[in-house]
Amino acid sequence: MNPVNLSLLTDFYEITMANGFLKNGFQDRTAYFDLFFRKVPDNGGFAIMAGVEQFIEYIENLKFEDEDIAYLRSKGLFDEAFLDYLKSFKFSCDVWAVPEGTPIFPNEPILTVRGPVIQAQFIETMALLSINHQCLIATKANRIVRAAQGRGVMEFGSRRAQGYDGAVYGARAAYIGGCIGTACTIADQYFGIPAIGTMAHSWVQMFDSELDAFRAYARAYPQSCTLLVDTYSVLKSGVPNAIKVFNEELVPKGFRPKGIRIDSGDITYLSREARRMLDAAGFPDCAIVASNSLDEYIIQDILNQGAQVDVFGVGERLITSRSEPVFGGVYKLAAVEADGRLTPKIKISENVTKITNPGFKQLWRFYDRKTGKAFADVLTLHDEAIDDSKPYELFDPEHTWKRKTATDFVAKRLLVQIFDKGRCVYDKPPLEDIKAFCKAQIDNLWDEVKRFENPHRYHVDLSRSLWDMKQTLLNQYTL
Amino acid sequence: MNPVNLSLLTDFYEITMANGFLKNGFQDRTAYFDLFFRKVPDNGGFAIMAGVEQFIEYIENLKFEDEDIAYLRSKGLFDEAFLDYLKSFKFSCDVWAVPEGTPIFPNEPILTVRGPVIQAQFIETMALLSINHQCLIATKANRIVRAAQGRGVMEFGSRRAQGYDGAVYGARAAYIGGCIGTACTIADQYFGIPAIGTMAHSWVQMFDSELDAFRAYARAYPQSCTLLVDTYSVLKSGVPNAIKVFNEELVPKGFRPKGIRIDSGDITYLSREARRMLDAAGFPDCAIVASNSLDEYIIQDILNQGAQVDVFGVGERLITSRSEPVFGGVYKLAAVEADGRLTPKIKISENVTKITNPGFKQLWRFYDRKTGKAFADVLTLHDEAIDDSKPYELFDPEHTWKRKTATDFVAKRLLVQIFDKGRCVYDKPPLEDIKAFCKAQIDNLWDEVKRFENPHRYHVDLSRSLWDMKQTLLNQYTL
Repeated sequence: MNPVNLSLLTDFYEITMANGFLKNGFQDRTAYFDLFFRKVPDNGGFAIMAGVEQFIEYIENLKFEDEDIAYLRSKGLFDEAFLDYLKSFKFSCDVWAVPEGTPIFPNEPILTVRGPVIQAQFIETMALLSINHQCLIATKANRIVRAAQGRGVMEFGSRRAQGYDGAVYGARAAYIGGCIGTACTIADQYFGIPAIGTMAHSWVQMFDSELDAFRAYARAYPQSCTLLVDTYSVLKSGVPNAIKVFNEELVPKGFRPKGIRIDSGDITYLSREARRMLDAAGFPDCAIVASNSLDEYIIQDILNQGAQVDVFGVGERLITSRSEPVFGGVYKLAAVEADGRLTPKIKISENVTKITNPGFKQLWRFYDRKTGKAFADVLTLHDEAIDDSKPYELFDPEHTWKRKTATDFVAKRLLVQIFDKGRCVYDKPPLEDIKAFCKAQIDNLWDEVKRFENPHRYHVDLSRSLWDMKQTLLNQYTL
Repeated sequence: MNPVNLSLLTDFYEITMANGFLKNGFQDRTAYFDLFFRKVPDNGGFAIMAGVEQFIEYIENLKFEDEDIAYLRSKGLFDEAFLDYLKSFKFSCDVWAVPEGTPIFPNEPILTVRGPVIQAQFIETMALLSINHQCLIATKANRIVRAAQGRGVMEFGSRRAQGYDGAVYGARAAYIGGCIGTACTIADQYFGIPAIGTMAHSWVQMFDSELDAFRAYARAYPQSCTLLVDTYSVLKSGVPNAIKVFNEELVPKGFRPKGIRIDSGDITYLSREARRMLDAAGFPDCAIVASNSLDEYIIQDILNQGAQVDVFGVGERLITSRSEPVFGGVYKLAAVEADGRLTPKIKISENVTKITNPGFKQLWRFYDRKTGKAFADVLTLHDEAIDDSKPYELFDPEHTWKRKTATDFVAKRLLVQIFDKGRCVYDKPPLEDIKAFCKAQIDNLWDEVKRFENPHRYHVDLSRSLWDMKQTLLNQYTL
């Protein structure tokens, strides 16, 4: 249904520039691009890296078919030499990325591409599209998962997703962020994300009565019977009928009910009453699932009020990251290499927060040896080593008088190479491993960074060498 | 890259219900489902129908491959009889839809499905996903286009879209809503939406100077030369260099400049100054393109301040409908037919605005014969005729004392059949026709309905017969 060949899912200017670079003899100039973002959505303390696997798939499938060449020729803008170049296009860049599931912070290079400028520029759109989308959803899902305080969160949003991929890759990102499953069947089929679902209100309406509908469902699925109890009235009809059917259809056959689901009304009140009724009826093990326009704020609020919910089904506000539906990753030139000479590049802006970090860089994370907690990230030149057996002076790149000496720490490189001269050199981890890695990494963050409101700003510093290079470039800048 | 077989892009409960319906001998019961929405995003006065073509494609490709059956069997939940049913699945429903590009209003059935309950239920997720996504973007794009007051709006959002389809089908919906083109190349290749693009800041940075970069671009594209003028300073460097290059590289060769683009800073001030400089240099025909986090509110505001912009490039706030990124379409059971008897169904809710309109319905639009303006929609029973040669009494379904007699009007049916017993009977119109139809239909709405703030609520009424049926069902409802 979707075009399998996504090579031309790219902004048109990538192509006009590519043709222009070739025309100007720039095909052997090497460019370095960094992908980074400037602000965590929802004013959160950190984001979560995701989407690398889909970006790799795009690169591995990147080629220009006859139909693509014919389309481009029809635009009347491009040289035949360029179309020939595309026909024999072979991706030959080096790419480094922060592994999926890693907490990431503003202004850090989370993807770096080095290679012929035509290629490194061309992949901008898909790099941003893949990473922006999944970072957005993984980050949002994790907020919701944290609000649920250990209770399960299911991703229920396919019907309100922004397109098919929005649903499928959104379910993948939500799983990385900590959801326990999805309603999206194909995400289970393709990615092994546990898909769960029972009934809609229409199931109940198709029968002569709610009781008949519940009986039919319990007979069909005695081993996994969750009943939707709010079609008529949760407390007057739904829960009493559910209890009746559990007793009639499940208990005699040796089954226990799995749950009830409440999809409307006041979740706090209804869940507390339902819990009381289920417990009194001998079903303390029957879970209560709640859905209906939930997000981290509502979940936090109703839990504070004592809602008795075991699993949250979260739909549109997760799958679209409704409160902030854009992850603002950008892709900027950091350096150019010609005739063996590396020239760092900086993008100046009237807005100082938009000034870029120049050069070919590495990103390090410092962990405290005693607590295991991450306490700072440092950007260095790519080949700069950090010796974590010695004290290391951290200083704030904006307020340089803010200094701190790190001791007794472990420094780990976060950018790992995923393509070497166009060949994928990365073992894509299984999704379960990414999810577990994400959880472990977030456990290594201080709670202060994880607050929803006014989180502590995690330190992202520059090494002295990188800072000096940046200052030199800034000082050279005159108009 | 994407799975071409999207048959299992469906909520898992559609499958548990399908299996349950078959188990309960419901395979010959006919169900009627309506797709409708309850609220226009951004508190607007109307939405725009879109996504029908993609829904049709899904239906036409809907079949269960061996891999799907094997996956479903692996869940250990489904009967072999059901898996056999899926193997020989053949869609046989009737479907009616409001044509793409039509203005639509809350609580109107914009898609109606009639057929075996297993099938009619199964397609819920994809019907909602296709229609919700594209209605959202078409509606948002049209708001932005209206704010631009006749100036062109380009869709620039691929890099921030929520997934690949979000970019591609989002570009399609934006075009229906009135955008003049897109930056998304593949949307041009597949749908013929004019793709445009010139250069990023990295183009300018790859050269030794802005002037060199502009010269190189003008030489490569003399016929369509738009220069990005804000890499260093719009007024001190960008515009003067652009004018120099226009004079040096274009004018002597008989070409005129196409435009300049401003992507940062104060668009109002910079565009006015740039316009003055370009005019003074003899380039009053050089367009000014503005981009950078625009939406309908900012465009309205800067135009009110006299910004001199000819084309707006709108990215993330259009492609995600950032201010309200969810279109809340729902899919509800409206009637059941068994043994030749039609039973209308109503969904009661504690929230009165969520009570559904029962029965098998048609949707009519009334146009004033004199002005051509649409002034009311009426929901009727499907086989009810409206004789527009006679006066017709309209009444508000909630405040029934509000009555009005329509005279001198034309009544048109909006729901057209797109599938007849599973066969597509709809000639999918070319995208250009949908776009033109959309524009004409919106021109037929009163300005009061098109206001951004507090728009007039367009009348959506029920026929007397439908209203009576609804009241009868409501009166029967007791708990």
